[in-house]
Amino acid sequence: MTRESMEWSVVGHDILRLDGPAKVRGAQRYLADMEFPGALHLALARSTHPHANILRVDTHAASGVPGVKAGFTGEDLLAVDGVRPCYGPAFRDQPILAFGKVRYAGEPIAAVAAESLEAAEEAAALIEAEYEELPHVQDPLEAARPGAPLLHDSLEPAGAFADLMALKGRPGTNICTHYKQRHGDAEKALAEADHVFEDTYTCPPVSHAHLEPHGTAACFEPGGRLIVHTTSQTPYFVRGDLAAIFGLALADVRVIVPPLGGSYGGKIYDKLEPLTCLMAKVTGRPVQLHLTREEVFYTSSRHGAATKIWTGIKDGKITARKVEVYYDAGTYAEIGPRIAQKTGSTAPGPYKFPNVSVDAFCVYTNKTPSGPLRGFGVPQLAIAYETHMNKAAAYLEKDPVALRREYVLEEGDLYSTGSPVTSIGLRACLDSVSRLMEKTSESRPAPNRGPAPTLEKHIARGRGIALAIKSVIAPSISNAIVELNSDGSAIVRSATVEMGQGATTVFAQIAAEELGLDVNKVRVTTPDTDQSPYDTLTAGSRSTYHMGNAIIGAARQVREKLLETASEALEIPSEELALREGRVFSRSLPERAMTIPEIFIKRFGAPGTTLTGEGTFQGHAVKADPETGQTPRMTEHWFAGASGAEVEVDTETGFVKVIRLISSADVGRAINPRHCIEQVQGAAAMTLGFTLFESMRIEDGRLVNGSFLEYPLTAFEDIPREFITDIVENPIESGPYGARGVGETGTIALKPAIVNAIHDAVGIWLDDMPITPEKVLRAMREATVAEPGKKTSGAEPGGESPK
Amino acid sequence: MTRESMEWSVVGHDILRLDGPAKVRGAQRYLADMEFPGALHLALARSTHPHANILRVDTHAASGVPGVKAGFTGEDLLAVDGVRPCYGPAFRDQPILAFGKVRYAGEPIAAVAAESLEAAEEAAALIEAEYEELPHVQDPLEAARPGAPLLHDSLEPAGAFADLMALKGRPGTNICTHYKQRHGDAEKALAEADHVFEDTYTCPPVSHAHLEPHGTAACFEPGGRLIVHTTSQTPYFVRGDLAAIFGLALADVRVIVPPLGGSYGGKIYDKLEPLTCLMAKVTGRPVQLHLTREEVFYTSSRHGAATKIWTGIKDGKITARKVEVYYDAGTYAEIGPRIAQKTGSTAPGPYKFPNVSVDAFCVYTNKTPSGPLRGFGVPQLAIAYETHMNKAAAYLEKDPVALRREYVLEEGDLYSTGSPVTSIGLRACLDSVSRLMEKTSESRPAPNRGPAPTLEKHIARGRGIALAIKSVIAPSISNAIVELNSDGSAIVRSATVEMGQGATTVFAQIAAEELGLDVNKVRVTTPDTDQSPYDTLTAGSRSTYHMGNAIIGAARQVREKLLETASEALEIPSEELALREGRVFSRSLPERAMTIPEIFIKRFGAPGTTLTGEGTFQGHAVKADPETGQTPRMTEHWFAGASGAEVEVDTETGFVKVIRLISSADVGRAINPRHCIEQVQGAAAMTLGFTLFESMRIEDGRLVNGSFLEYPLTAFEDIPREFITDIVENPIESGPYGARGVGETGTIALKPAIVNAIHDAVGIWLDDMPITPEKVLRAMREATVAEPGKKTSGAEPGGESPK
Repeated sequence: MTRESMEWSVVGHDILRLDGPAKVRGAQRYLADMEFPGALHLALARSTHPHANILRVDTHAASGVPGVKAGFTGEDLLAVDGVRPCYGPAFRDQPILAFGKVRYAGEPIAAVAAESLEAAEEAAALIEAEYEELPHVQDPLEAARPGAPLLHDSLEPAGAFADLMALKGRPGTNICTHYKQRHGDAEKALAEADHVFEDTYTCPPVSHAHLEPHGTAACFEPGGRLIVHTTSQTPYFVRGDLAAIFGLALADVRVIVPPLGGSYGGKIYDKLEPLTCLMAKVTGRPVQLHLTREEVFYTSSRHGAATKIWTGIKDGKITARKVEVYYDAGTYAEIGPRIAQKTGSTAPGPYKFPNVSVDAFCVYTNKTPSGPLRGFGVPQLAIAYETHMNKAAAYLEKDPVALRREYVLEEGDLYSTGSPVTSIGLRACLDSVSRLMEKTSESRPAPNRGPAPTLEKHIARGRGIALAIKSVIAPSISNAIVELNSDGSAIVRSATVEMGQGATTVFAQIAAEELGLDVNKVRVTTPDTDQSPYDTLTAGSRSTYHMGNAIIGAARQVREKLLETASEALEIPSEELALREGRVFSRSLPERAMTIPEIFIKRFGAPGTTLTGEGTFQGHAVKADPETGQTPRMTEHWFAGASGAEVEVDTETGFVKVIRLISSADVGRAINPRHCIEQVQGAAAMTLGFTLFESMRIEDGRLVNGSFLEYPLTAFEDIPREFITDIVENPIESGPYGARGVGETGTIALKPAIVNAIHDAVGIWLDDMPITPEKVLRAMREATVAEPGKKTSGAEPGGESPK
Repeated sequence: MTRESMEWSVVGHDILRLDGPAKVRGAQRYLADMEFPGALHLALARSTHPHANILRVDTHAASGVPGVKAGFTGEDLLAVDGVRPCYGPAFRDQPILAFGKVRYAGEPIAAVAAESLEAAEEAAALIEAEYEELPHVQDPLEAARPGAPLLHDSLEPAGAFADLMALKGRPGTNICTHYKQRHGDAEKALAEADHVFEDTYTCPPVSHAHLEPHGTAACFEPGGRLIVHTTSQTPYFVRGDLAAIFGLALADVRVIVPPLGGSYGGKIYDKLEPLTCLMAKVTGRPVQLHLTREEVFYTSSRHGAATKIWTGIKDGKITARKVEVYYDAGTYAEIGPRIAQKTGSTAPGPYKFPNVSVDAFCVYTNKTPSGPLRGFGVPQLAIAYETHMNKAAAYLEKDPVALRREYVLEEGDLYSTGSPVTSIGLRACLDSVSRLMEKTSESRPAPNRGPAPTLEKHIARGRGIALAIKSVIAPSISNAIVELNSDGSAIVRSATVEMGQGATTVFAQIAAEELGLDVNKVRVTTPDTDQSPYDTLTAGSRSTYHMGNAIIGAARQVREKLLETASEALEIPSEELALREGRVFSRSLPERAMTIPEIFIKRFGAPGTTLTGEGTFQGHAVKADPETGQTPRMTEHWFAGASGAEVEVDTETGFVKVIRLISSADVGRAINPRHCIEQVQGAAAMTLGFTLFESMRIEDGRLVNGSFLEYPLTAFEDIPREFITDIVENPIESGPYGARGVGETGTIALKPAIVNAIHDAVGIWLDDMPITPEKVLRAMREATVAEPGKKTSGAEPGGESPK
């Protein structure tokens, strides 16, 4: 804890998660634990082809199963009056049920509603479909080429994100978005460079793998209101889209979200909601749909990406950085266009280069639709730009940390978009991770002092670091209501979704701090659009900053009312009063005080009353020029993080083990330091899987590992022996107590740190994730063949690694 | 509709009830229609004695019934840690389950929780109890006497209503509250009077007879929060009391109230909630309890009352009014002490008398606990003071209307409590009812021109009028939140309970008016203490005024934000902008305008957002001197109403038929004129039953007519052929658009109007409700015996009635 945070009684302290006890005891009720009286169960039939015209979908046999109330196809959907058949946040490209054609293997083609789940599943299995197969495309680079099999004939803008329309890709291709950034003249600088590094880095689609599958329950009330319980990070977006799909007023759609069992971006925008509500409408009954694990793999994945990167060096300086990134949207664009635009804008990395060119594409392929996943596309870029920094360091024979210090963005610098960079903790993170790499090295046989006693001959050790930034989602808005009870307990109404990130606890801390309450007496409600005011979404590590600020605003309205009454009663000016531990007291004469219950009685003369405050916070950005990406304000603020990894590479098997992992994260201010560490470590552990073994494997256009038996996740045995997190506090003036988000900071720089460490260990550069033993062995063999006896030099902090 | 109301586009218009369609189609879900997954059913065993020591309650046989989870007695209750065993709004006199002794026949002595209702009921019937009988008392006058069987040894103040403690009745008696009012010297004036009328008027307990019986469902969430769905007019009171009973923070109790199927005061304060929550606690399961109709009779009733009244006349003037009223609390005080105090303060009636004395008592008897019922005790008083006005008129040989005009309170007069009377529409109501009595008379054979052609010899016709006032509950507080959506739909969050009175529609009108919205796009949420801020209660015709003002406050905060943005965008000062039909426009150049969606996009740059406002309104009163009842502000404002009745009395059977009924009600301003008429007519129809046939009949200490077969309600055939309502608009400056409440105004003067009409018809004065044919015949016989050939004179408007 820093010195400043001692001023606060709740903020800055390691408060245990308020939702922890119920969760560890297994008592937390998730959506699947809820009962929806009278609700029909839905089961879905899915396409077996990656791309095909639908000739026939036959629900006849399915409808004959006892208990089945309705079998429903995409053709039936088109016949329903007053329902808009397609949805999507950027383009309305996704049908509620496929009609006309299917675009990926696993796409829903029909739904069955039945009195029991068993009947629904039995019936769904009886649905027959005939297809006319079409050529399909899986690779985003191939899909981006003219002449590739085309997934969508035209694109209907969704209207929500108007700025994305200016970036619409070329009609008649699979490119739905093309973001451009131009700063200086990268092409010219590359042409004039002494040396140009040019590489393509690829990341496959991976699964969010939230332990709780998606679920939605919906019913239309007698008055026509639509009530939806759903696992969603975006209750207000879902409300708006359902209103549009079904032609309802916003006030006639109520979206309720219980705590989620993980999400990571996988439960964002519309998922099961349009189909579930449609089935509620056509059956006139409440309905519920809960996915199986396999179906989760058919619902969302992280964008695979191919990142082409060029780094030009002239006269000992990096003079140019050019990036072309192809985000693999899968079948439907979802928020991919925003990733191409927003994350594309940070593709040059956290550095000052004189000449920059970025082209970021969002490309359709015949795969599960992609969505954001912890990092919003940044990790797919950082692997490229941070490996290239080490390549450049090697070429320039500089220490990689020193080279980064030369180019790293400092406070007040202009980003290559022309936006000033403010409150940026990049150097602090870089310093932190490099210091910790050194310090922790001292406690064991130094890697540059020869093999450790226990190190086998075939084990090579290496170390690497990396740095990355991410811009916060902007513009975005959070509103909150704080209701203080006369006993000093309070309710915070916020539409932020608790999905394990600890928002509930942090919000309670903020309200408790502002109002001088016992944090255990603050209850944060779960999102319910009938009770919590608007919040853009729970994603992008934005909640602590945005909702935190809104809660401060709301709490301060209440605080003012408390002080007003106390000031009148105590005859002390408000500004001389303080509020702590349930008491308002004079700063100079603390014994002149009133308790909160006393203030309520004074103000209202009645027990049990409430004081309400409401707060709004809006983060800003200015739309960029679509041709150059230039804007005076590209985001509200930044996240900075650095990772350091030490690996052991088994040169006989190619197996890579991360034995030490250091994460340095700029959290602005740690409202709950323990939470911050957990967030950073959780992100790092997850990213370890994406780096070393996770991949949704497609064969013949079909997913072949859609289960946790075949799709491995990071296990406890994969966690490094040393798993160090350094919370860097670089307060952001506009943040609540200086805090910024921390949910993704641990993920962004980890992959290149490992790639750099492997290079340090065995001299190979890897560019295709995940880093399987096969790829390591192949790369080592190729390196030996290409340059026998020579190892690409790589100077890591602490000097050369042992080989 | 008045001319002024034409300024408004929604307020003042006959908007159809927004909750009407679902209700008339039978689609409204009431509490009993809701399913509570996994909830145990409760059934209760009840005392068979009116007053007895409990020797033994045996749940052994009950516990053996398959499916029974728990049998629970009052003794068990005392063994539960951390639960306060007694509750009550004024005194903590009511046990969650009777322990030690029972105080009325029908009191719950044990509860059974079982997997099915059938099992619970079967088990409850097997509970055995042994009693030692004690003497019991049923009549409030007897119960008030020293030496009467004592119900409570001591009284524990509840803490909520501290002012009532100053009025605590004599310890060691059944009098729990004694309110006093002294103005001038009534005793002296009575002693010096030329003539003193002295009478005692009695009203029996009657049933609220809400068609929906009471129900409550409760569960403790894993985190320890208590969630309660209940049929209650007082969600916030229930929340506070449950928190106190179970030692929880207010924020850890959530009370949710669906629309009620009627209530009328019968679902106020704690009813089933403490017991249901207790059973949830001891079983560790959700539980639900739904009463049978018979059990409703054992749960609450309207206070019976005995009102002794003295009116002194000297030199042609009324010089003194003295009242002693004994409100029959039944077994537990509930809100009876407040009725004695607040309603007692209006016991002199709506007149200026120089000498006034009031003593109002709340007295325990061995009956079902009493609660407020539409009028909060005023009808039990008005029968006395308004019959006496006619007696005085007869004595003084004056027209009863003229006599009332002589004494009626006018704007700015001081009430006998010393409080100025403001915005009082008494004279307007009196004028209205007397004008309508005349006017409607012209359309038929005038009663003073001999018998109508169809009138049988044994049918006597007569007419009577009466006037009454009621003070609004004060102090009391309402809070509201208004959330405007970007599509011009809105959500109003209010803890006002919709129980058929139409609050939902009126609130939607108010929000729509303030924000220029389509009233059909405003949704008013049902009370949920997690989402709606504090409201004192839904009762006493207070919601339109108090909550209406709070909603105006909340809506105006939103309105200001809309105007602020529009002003900036249109470059027109806010004060020159108007808001109507979803548009903000320049008052001088209406074509310079923005729609609400445009304003949202301008303000937030994002669709689907919300604008929040919150409002608070508090009605005030100043605590009176406990010895004299004098106070500078006895209430926030007043309700005034007048009734006129024409009756036909069958002199052979004693049967009274009301053939014409006129209600004139000062509504301040009719926000929804149609609603106002329905409210007044509903109140009048209900009061007709209380006047002519309703009574909870007690024999040997036990209720003998606890079913709708034996307890008659007003039926369509009882409704007068002419049922006229005049809405008097006497705007109240502090009211929303000038409105005041109207829920009770139709009830307060009706009884004496009928009694006066019967006197006009057949010359008898009746003082014991209900007016059964037996009582009419007996009174006629007694009158003939006492004064053969002489009829007490009674001059009614329009002159003498035909006999």
